[in-house]
Parts: sequence; C-alpha cells; structure tokens
Amino acid sequence: MVEIIEKKRNGGRLTREELAFWIEGVMDGGVPDYQTSALLMAIYFRGLDMEEITDLTGEMAASGDQVDLSMVPGIPVDKHSTGGVGDTTTLIAGPLVAACGGRVVKMSGRGLGHTGGTIDKLEAIPGMRTGLTIDQFIAQVSRIGLAVAGQSAQLAPADKILYALRDVTATTDSLGLIASSIMSKKLASGAKAIVLDVKVGSGAFMKELDDAIALAQAMVKIGQGHGRSTRALLTNMDQPLGRAVGNAIEVAEGIEVLQGKHAESDLRKVSLMLAENMLLAAGVYPDAQSCKRALDEALASGRALEKLGEMIAAQGGDARVIQRPERLGQGACRLDVKSASGGYVSAIDTQRIGHAALLLGAGRRKKEDAIDPMAGLLMRARLGQKLAPGETLATLFASDEALLAPAQAALLSAVTLRESPAQVPPLCYGWVDESGFHPTK
Amino acid sequence: MVEIIEKKRNGGRLTREELAFWIEGVMDGGVPDYQTSALLMAIYFRGLDMEEITDLTGEMAASGDQVDLSMVPGIPVDKHSTGGVGDTTTLIAGPLVAACGGRVVKMSGRGLGHTGGTIDKLEAIPGMRTGLTIDQFIAQVSRIGLAVAGQSAQLAPADKILYALRDVTATTDSLGLIASSIMSKKLASGAKAIVLDVKVGSGAFMKELDDAIALAQAMVKIGQGHGRSTRALLTNMDQPLGRAVGNAIEVAEGIEVLQGKHAESDLRKVSLMLAENMLLAAGVYPDAQSCKRALDEALASGRALEKLGEMIAAQGGDARVIQRPERLGQGACRLDVKSASGGYVSAIDTQRIGHAALLLGAGRRKKEDAIDPMAGLLMRARLGQKLAPGETLATLFASDEALLAPAQAALLSAVTLRESPAQVPPLCYGWVDESGFHPTK
Repeated sequence: MVEIIEKKRNGGRLTREELAFWIEGVMDGGVPDYQTSALLMAIYFRGLDMEEITDLTGEMAASGDQVDLSMVPGIPVDKHSTGGVGDTTTLIAGPLVAACGGRVVKMSGRGLGHTGGTIDKLEAIPGMRTGLTIDQFIAQVSRIGLAVAGQSAQLAPADKILYALRDVTATTDSLGLIASSIMSKKLASGAKAIVLDVKVGSGAFMKELDDAIALAQAMVKIGQGHGRSTRALLTNMDQPLGRAVGNAIEVAEGIEVLQGKHAESDLRKVSLMLAENMLLAAGVYPDAQSCKRALDEALASGRALEKLGEMIAAQGGDARVIQRPERLGQGACRLDVKSASGGYVSAIDTQRIGHAALLLGAGRRKKEDAIDPMAGLLMRARLGQKLAPGETLATLFASDEALLAPAQAALLSAVTLRESPAQVPPLCYGWVDESGFHPTK
Repeated sequence: MVEIIEKKRNGGRLTREELAFWIEGVMDGGVPDYQTSALLMAIYFRGLDMEEITDLTGEMAASGDQVDLSMVPGIPVDKHSTGGVGDTTTLIAGPLVAACGGRVVKMSGRGLGHTGGTIDKLEAIPGMRTGLTIDQFIAQVSRIGLAVAGQSAQLAPADKILYALRDVTATTDSLGLIASSIMSKKLASGAKAIVLDVKVGSGAFMKELDDAIALAQAMVKIGQGHGRSTRALLTNMDQPLGRAVGNAIEVAEGIEVLQGKHAESDLRKVSLMLAENMLLAAGVYPDAQSCKRALDEALASGRALEKLGEMIAAQGGDARVIQRPERLGQGACRLDVKSASGGYVSAIDTQRIGHAALLLGAGRRKKEDAIDPMAGLLMRARLGQKLAPGETLATLFASDEALLAPAQAALLSAVTLRESPAQVPPLCYGWVDESGFHPTK
C-alpha cells in the first residue's frame, strides 16, 4: 500500500489491480484509514485520469450488492441530480418517461444539508412506502414502468467509507473522487441508461460552469466505460428551480405541473428536458423531436399524471393527491416574508434558501434528524423580477411558530435587490453525451 | 482540524496555534491518525516555510520531557549525525571536545537499518551502562565533561507518532518534516549548542548535495530560532567513513584514532572537523585556529584518549579497552572477501555495505532485533584505490559461519571497479552556520 501511495504521490497512474487492492483493503480493513487518507490527499494533488476514475468507480460499485435489472423489459433508465433546491424534477420526469414507454428505475437517497431528497418528498404522501425489496422494485417497474424507492440493497459501501473519510480530511473537492462516488452507486443500482442533472450555481455543489462541465464529462465517460448509455444536462441553480422548497409542498407543485399548471415554469422546462434525455438515453424514440412530441402528448393528455397516480398507488400511497394536491397539507404556522425595499431581484443565495427550509423543519442537519413533511416555503421572488417595497418574497410554512423568525432572517439575507434590471442566467447551459459537451444555442 | 488540513492543502501557512492544536491532538488522540496522515500528505505537496518548521519543531519538542541542563556549567554541546556507515565520530570527537574544556551531552538512539547507533556501539564495551538517569547524566557531564547515554527521558513523543505514520503513508521525503523530526529531539534533550553532521552520498539518507544543504540550513535555522547555537557540516558518505563497520570493531577503530593511529584517515579528519565545530558552537575558543591547536594537543598528548577512558569508567565499562582495544573482540568466523577482477574502485554502494554488516548480525531490521556486538566488517578497499585481481576488498566477522556467504554476496555487489582512475569525492563539502552555507575551498 505504501508503494501505491508513493506512486500516486509521484504522479504515477494506478492500475486496475492497484485500485482493486486499495478498495478491497478499505472493505476488509487490510488498508487502515490513515493510509487511505494519505492516498486521498495524494489524489487530490495529482488527480486521476479517466481510466483510473473508471476503474475506481467499477471497484467501488463491486464493493457491495449489484442490482440485476435484466428481468426488466427494455432499457431501464435512472435519473440523478447532483443536488439542488426546489428540485422535484424526478416526480415529473419519471411519470412522463414511463407514460411514453420508458422504464424508470430510481433508487434514491434522503436529503442532507440544504438539498432535499426524493425519498423524503415521496414520504410526504400519506401511506407511501419507499422501502421496496429488489423483487418488488423489479415487479413494479415491469408492470407500470416506474418505481422510485430507497436503497434497499447495500450499494457501493466502499464509497460510503471513502466519503466519510474525505469529509474529515479536506479531500472532498477532487473531480475524480466526486465523479466516482456518484457513479459507483449508479452502476451498482443496475440501470442500463443514466441521465445526470448537473446543477450549477449558488445552490449547487458546483458553483462554476467549467467545474460542472468537467464533472459531467467525467461521469458520462465513466458510465459509457461501464457500458451504460449516459447523458448529462447542465442546469442552473442560482435560484430554486421550482417555487416550492420542502417536501409535501414540492410534491404538490410537481403534481400541478403534471396537471398542466405552471406552463412557463423553469421546473416544467427542466423536467421536460430531463425526460427527453431519459427517453433518448434509453433509446425509446429515435430522435429528440419524436421524444418531445411524445412528452407533450403525455403531459397534455394527463397520462403522465395518471402514471404518477399508478406509482403512488402501487407503493401504498393515497393516489387521490394527484387530483387534489392540497390533501398533502402544509404547516399550520405561516408567514409572508416581505421585502423592506424595492428593486430588481439580482441574486438569490440559493444555498441559504435551502437552509431557511431546513430551519423550518424541512431538512436535516444530521442523518438522524427527523424532518417535518409539512414544513417548507414558497418562493414568490424570482431572478430579474421587479419588486415593490413590502412585496412578498416568500411564504413560510412550519408546524412550530418559533421556527418562522430564524427562517425569515435567513431568507431575507438570501435575496439581493438592486435598482437596475438584472440579467437572468440561462436555465440550461447544455448537455454532455458520448461526443462531448454541447452548449445550448 | 479539517480547516487546518484544508488550509495547508490550499497552500496556506499554519500558525503556531494551529500547529500546537495539531500536535496536542496527536498526543491526546483528539486528532485521529487519518487526519494527521492527510495533513502530512498536504505538507508533502505544499511544504512548510521556516517559521512553520521552527514552530512545529518547538511543539514536538514540548510534547514530552524537556531535559533541563542548566545545572551543567558552561554551554553543553550536542552532536548529531544524520546517519552513515562506519561513522563512529562521536566516540572520537566527544572525548576530544571534553579534553579541550567543552561539555559534551549526547543522548543517542539505537541503530535501525543500514546505519549503526552510538548506543549499540558503546554497549560493545564490557560492562558499559548507557541507561543513565537525567541526574546521573548531568552529574557525569559536570564532573568529567562528557556523557553519551540512551534517551532515558521521553523526548519528543509526538515525533515518534508522526514518524511511524510517515513511514506507512509515503510522507517521509519532506524537508520540513525531516528537519523538524531530528531537531525536536535535539531541542528536547536540552543542549545549548548543537553540531550536525549531515551526510551526503550512497550510504546517506540524502543522496544529493543540494538536498543535504537545504536540510542543513533548515536545521540550523530551527536551532537558532530556538536559541541554540547551531552549526552543520556536510560530509561525504559515498563510502564507509572509517574502515570498520559494526559495533565492537568500530569502537576499536575509534580508540585507535585517539591513540594517534590512522593519522591520514577520513574518520580522523571528520572527527576533528566536528570537534572543532563543537568547540566553536559552544564558544570554548574564540576562533577556528585556537580550536584546532587545542584539539591537536589533546590528541597528541593522549588526553582525549584518557577522557574516553574516564567516560567508560564512569559508565561502568572496562576502561582497559582504551589501551588494548583488541579486548573488545570480534566474531570468531571470519572471511576475506576478494575481488574477482582488478581495477580502480570507482563506486561503493555504501548502503549495501551497511546491509552486509547487518547480515553479519551487526544491525537490526526491526526494532526488536538483537544485535551481535562482535559482528561486522573491515573495509580494505577505498574509493580511487587500485586493486589487483584477488586482492581483499573487506574482511567479514560473524559469530555464525552461515552468515558469511550472504554478506559476502552483498559486499561484492556493492563495490564497482573500472579500468581508469576514478575521481574521489571531497570529504567535506562545507558547513552551514547562521550566515548560510560555506563551501569548502
């Protein structure tokens, strides 16, 4: 192991065998933490080339259970977001794709920090089960084309160990380590096609477009390298994607989009783009044009909404929410946060908006924390918008009156107004496929 | 701690408080090994500036006992070698300096790997005690001006922990870490003046002169920074310094030098240079010229030899060895290693010579290994010398016949002959004092 550390320290490239030796040692305890952390720091400085990243990802994926989805007809497709705020696209794009004949397999995690997790959102639906067995998961996808469940299998446990160690040794910010961490779980969860939504901006892990493009390219290459049809979109996260930030409140907004509401919203636009890429990655339609047509039809006809209802029903939830999303409820304590001054919304610290929702009870600081599904906020202000003094920036919902004031303070400090009109960033910067990055025209 | 790692990772400089936090955490377990190893790797890449190195050394020195030598009259002087082969200068320079009025305080370690330790050599003298208490140590230095003992106090325990971790995380080769490791023990052992013998060449830790100069400069600055009068010599280690490599055999050679033998030997020359610098560092004489005169007189008169005898007697050893060094004995099994071909000795892999001695029983692979004081070898060949075919390269001594053959093979592979006369490297490259590096003219 010392030789492996020394080789990377000196800028050498690690072979598949060396990476396997390391990851096996991480799993069986043969390589102690202090050697792993030294190697992680050497990797931080020297980097990993694409072959190393691809091999490392494969070794981490092989460190635990690997879900076999060969029983699912067609090409099952997974969708993953690098994490945003008000980002409930899975609940919209998933049903859309399934309604168009795709097979959507999503094993999702819970939220931590300022970004929400899809599983937490789903559990805001009364009765909803997210802990499916692999057999139940496969049966449901085969029958209705869609399942979103928590990770029941032990996926990429080596990644969990490395991730925990990186967090306490200042070695998180390494492109190769980030890309392999995300993709190891995707590979292990068995989808044949993968669509990645790489977020860029104040609410995203990646603040800079160039870094996000590099990450997207690395992840797409890893996926391709392991025989998975992989595409990535680069989308903006300089403000919450939807207006709703929370759990029940986001599900409700997702349902409304599928009901045909919020027709001009960014949430709908990005969900449709992701759905289109999922259909393309899974090869359901031959080209983007026919994907778009099919998606428009599935949305307009209400079939996508029905598909969501089927999934909710299949997982034990109250499917009546798709007609009456208000059944999901919202925190009884409510506060309109008003702007003291007027002006154009020029910047939104989106991470802080996520933090405000967390303060209301919608998120977790630590893994063990419980969340309040009814808590959250509804953003009224959007970038570029002109606000009069006293106009409402956002409405907060909580179950405890005392939580409103700190969240209000966080929210007020997150929104910047200025006198002249501000430029609004593009919603989508482009996409990455096997041929590289394609900027949006 | 994560912030400290991140700061260094990003090329920042660590404050005294941050270094203290780290080292205290290393000692009390508050900072786990995996964070220390990540920081060590970040230091490997980013380096430490002189202020950081000086502060780190001070913190490590403060992590355990700090010997108080204020009871010793005058300016007690320590001497330290970075490790060589056939390097028994302490047993020559120490008595010389004491005979000239200096106060020599040396707390020494045991040998590991291919270089020998002074304590192991002393213990080859029948009856010799090296485990003095601090009080015994101080009393002996005050009375006779000279004590060489094992570390009875717990000196710089933080360094021991870091050293062990560096060894298994490929972070040994860092100038700042090497310099602070050596100097932390020197600071803790309490000498007011320190002379360092930095070895350069095939048998030394430092193979390149530039690296050795940088190390010497760093160590001198650390010493000065902590108020110790510090000087360093840069001496050659492309062949064993003395002819003897082992324990009893090296003591015998040291005694012979003090008896006035080996008048033109490199061992005698380097010992005199070190002694001169020890006297200068301790301020016993005002200039180099008067030091030299005093040393020549101490050697010629036999007073230095007598001083060694006093030290041996004070520490319970058989002082008769200073008149009859053959009393020290040598391994009963003996082998003359002969050169197959003839030619000029153009290179000696000195590390391998040390390894040959180890194979004979004179050294340790692991800390727990016992050594055989009677084992060792006597080099006959020296760089630049012309050898006829069949001439003896070295004579091996061991207590077990079976050990001779592997040592012979190691020795034969260590010596390179060629047809044309070879250039012999200079014995001393220069010295470093507070004003910088002074190359030998």
